[in-house]
Amino acid sequence: MSIPAKLLVDIHTHVYLPRYASLLRSRSSVPFIRTITNPQGTREDRLLILDQEPSGGRPVGAQYWDREEKLKFMDKHGIDISIVRYSKQGVISANPWLDFLPASQAHTLASELNNDLEQYCATSPLVVDHKIKRLYGFGLLPLVPEISTSALLEIVQQIHNLPHLRGLIMGTRGIGKGLDDEALDPVWAAIEKAKLVVFLHPHYGVDSSAWGEKENGHVLPLALGFPFETTTAATRLILSGVFDRFPSLRLLLAHSGGALPALSSRLASCIEHDPIVASRLQHDARYYLGKLYLDAVAYGPEELGFVSDVISRAERYKSGSLTKVDANRSVGSRQLLFGTDHPFFPPLSSSDKWASVTWNLEAIADVEGWTQDDKDGVRGGNAISLFNLEE
Amino acid sequence: MSIPAKLLVDIHTHVYLPRYASLLRSRSSVPFIRTITNPQGTREDRLLILDQEPSGGRPVGAQYWDREEKLKFMDKHGIDISIVRYSKQGVISANPWLDFLPASQAHTLASELNNDLEQYCATSPLVVDHKIKRLYGFGLLPLVPEISTSALLEIVQQIHNLPHLRGLIMGTRGIGKGLDDEALDPVWAAIEKAKLVVFLHPHYGVDSSAWGEKENGHVLPLALGFPFETTTAATRLILSGVFDRFPSLRLLLAHSGGALPALSSRLASCIEHDPIVASRLQHDARYYLGKLYLDAVAYGPEELGFVSDVISRAERYKSGSLTKVDANRSVGSRQLLFGTDHPFFPPLSSSDKWASVTWNLEAIADVEGWTQDDKDGVRGGNAISLFNLEE
Repeated sequence: MSIPAKLLVDIHTHVYLPRYASLLRSRSSVPFIRTITNPQGTREDRLLILDQEPSGGRPVGAQYWDREEKLKFMDKHGIDISIVRYSKQGVISANPWLDFLPASQAHTLASELNNDLEQYCATSPLVVDHKIKRLYGFGLLPLVPEISTSALLEIVQQIHNLPHLRGLIMGTRGIGKGLDDEALDPVWAAIEKAKLVVFLHPHYGVDSSAWGEKENGHVLPLALGFPFETTTAATRLILSGVFDRFPSLRLLLAHSGGALPALSSRLASCIEHDPIVASRLQHDARYYLGKLYLDAVAYGPEELGFVSDVISRAERYKSGSLTKVDANRSVGSRQLLFGTDHPFFPPLSSSDKWASVTWNLEAIADVEGWTQDDKDGVRGGNAISLFNLEE
Repeated sequence: MSIPAKLLVDIHTHVYLPRYASLLRSRSSVPFIRTITNPQGTREDRLLILDQEPSGGRPVGAQYWDREEKLKFMDKHGIDISIVRYSKQGVISANPWLDFLPASQAHTLASELNNDLEQYCATSPLVVDHKIKRLYGFGLLPLVPEISTSALLEIVQQIHNLPHLRGLIMGTRGIGKGLDDEALDPVWAAIEKAKLVVFLHPHYGVDSSAWGEKENGHVLPLALGFPFETTTAATRLILSGVFDRFPSLRLLLAHSGGALPALSSRLASCIEHDPIVASRLQHDARYYLGKLYLDAVAYGPEELGFVSDVISRAERYKSGSLTKVDANRSVGSRQLLFGTDHPFFPPLSSSDKWASVTWNLEAIADVEGWTQDDKDGVRGGNAISLFNLEE
């Protein structure tokens, strides 16, 4: 077994597989896909996720479900391997995963979609000169209200058994009450035991009244709402003691953890000063950030350097730590992983490479205090290890 | 004129003056203060800001309005000067400033409160061996719906004329539609011309349904909701072009800018990829962060180092910048200013010094890459310059 060196691995990339698109096409209430004829006279698919969709729906197309499109995008940007995940249109809140379905149908569909995704990855080409595939995936849990614990555990086991699925995705609402719901404890236990990586991605955003009345496109819900949602979910997980009960859980947060790293010392201070929670957790809140994996989708080198520091310093905040642990920025780099967010953020005008990808690659290259090994790790080596892609 | 060296200046510290407390005592609907007899048989004041206040209201007392208490707190922590601001209970959303009052009453009260605050500061003792007072203040604008522009401009002028008021505070809602409301343009113009520093502080938090059903005390609204509110308000200001129209405006953000620094490259990317806003602003979003002043109320050295980097790098993102400007972390330190958030976050058990203060002092001392001069600046020198406290 050897560790392939210097591969570029994209761990944050979205896909809608045909079965999910077909389901949406078969529906006539949100969420659904309809085909319209655009002003240029050509037909195009639109996804509608709100009853009053102002723009007639968001254009969706081959980039969402065609594997050749994904591979072409990967080739254009020198990406060797992608670990894909089922997606949502990443723009507007109240956007569906499976939670518009009744529990039994969600259960069956999740199982079918996981098999589809296994097939999508298993039949993908090999990385040139390597024995590993170009596509791996995150499976899908049927996180809908009323789902039985046994159904969830069955799907965790299914994902564990499918050889090209190396983790699973979760939304922030859990089965309706959020991820701090104790009802999920058996699920966390099963995930921890199966050593599956949980990719936590925002989906619903936050209450849109905060954005005001000005026309700002999708900037506020995307730039702020999504990170706020991730931050809140991860903070609630920390406060609920999930990381004390399941210390080997491996959680990967989208968008470099949103605002959580920047607010983590404030969080620790607020906990320390609040009689309700001050004695609840085993460690200072900042300790738990050392348990997280973060994608490197932050678009700036200072951001990546900082989140690397926050992971590096975590040991300093372990209960009983008597000395200041030296926070070498390299330590944290091992828990950061390159991602693109494809097919979101396409360039506004045609361009050879996508700025949303090159900014993230340049950010990794420009982090002060990271060695070349650290950068290679963030570009791919860390993903190879985390997802067991060694040959 | 000389610049006093090595003073410790607290620029984030709250006060309720007696006139405001009296107003709240005179009311019988929220917001109001009532006196209760506690289980120990002693009488204490409680502030009620919600109709169904679960805990019978928040205890309020001398630490909110008694100047001797403020000075005692300052002495205990070696704070030479405080620049105080009118406050709200910093805990629960929908919490009053003046926006529960009709416009004419808010106008009159703001004017009276500004005179009260001037008096509070003007009669404060001198810093030992110096010719400057120990207390200065931020004035208050009557930002309520239906207020006339002329009333707002009159109060800006009043604050400008009161010698111990060196800035003003604003809430994030403006006169009802947020700070990106063009109706505020004449106010920004007047503030810019008067060279007053605007302290932007959160107040309403965000929609509390995001916090879920678990009992987590006040941790989520304080640790996350407040920074989210500040981040949203400042981002909306950037998107509205206020900093393009009023390039000399001096805006000071509470809690080290909340999540804005950490999300600023993501913000820039979202703007770059959104057809509605991509061409609106004169510069990359990150340029505008170089115009901000941030309090150093972030509780950790990595956080302060990072926000310092974000300010330092701003010039790199000026339109037309062709070369990568070297981001020396010292540059950003000049726009960071020590604060305590007193009287919030008192220690849970009696203690000589407050952890909420010492954490912030230690964070400043521990920032990697800051010189002793940089640290002295953040502790007080920057505030002396920004608020013209030179002797």
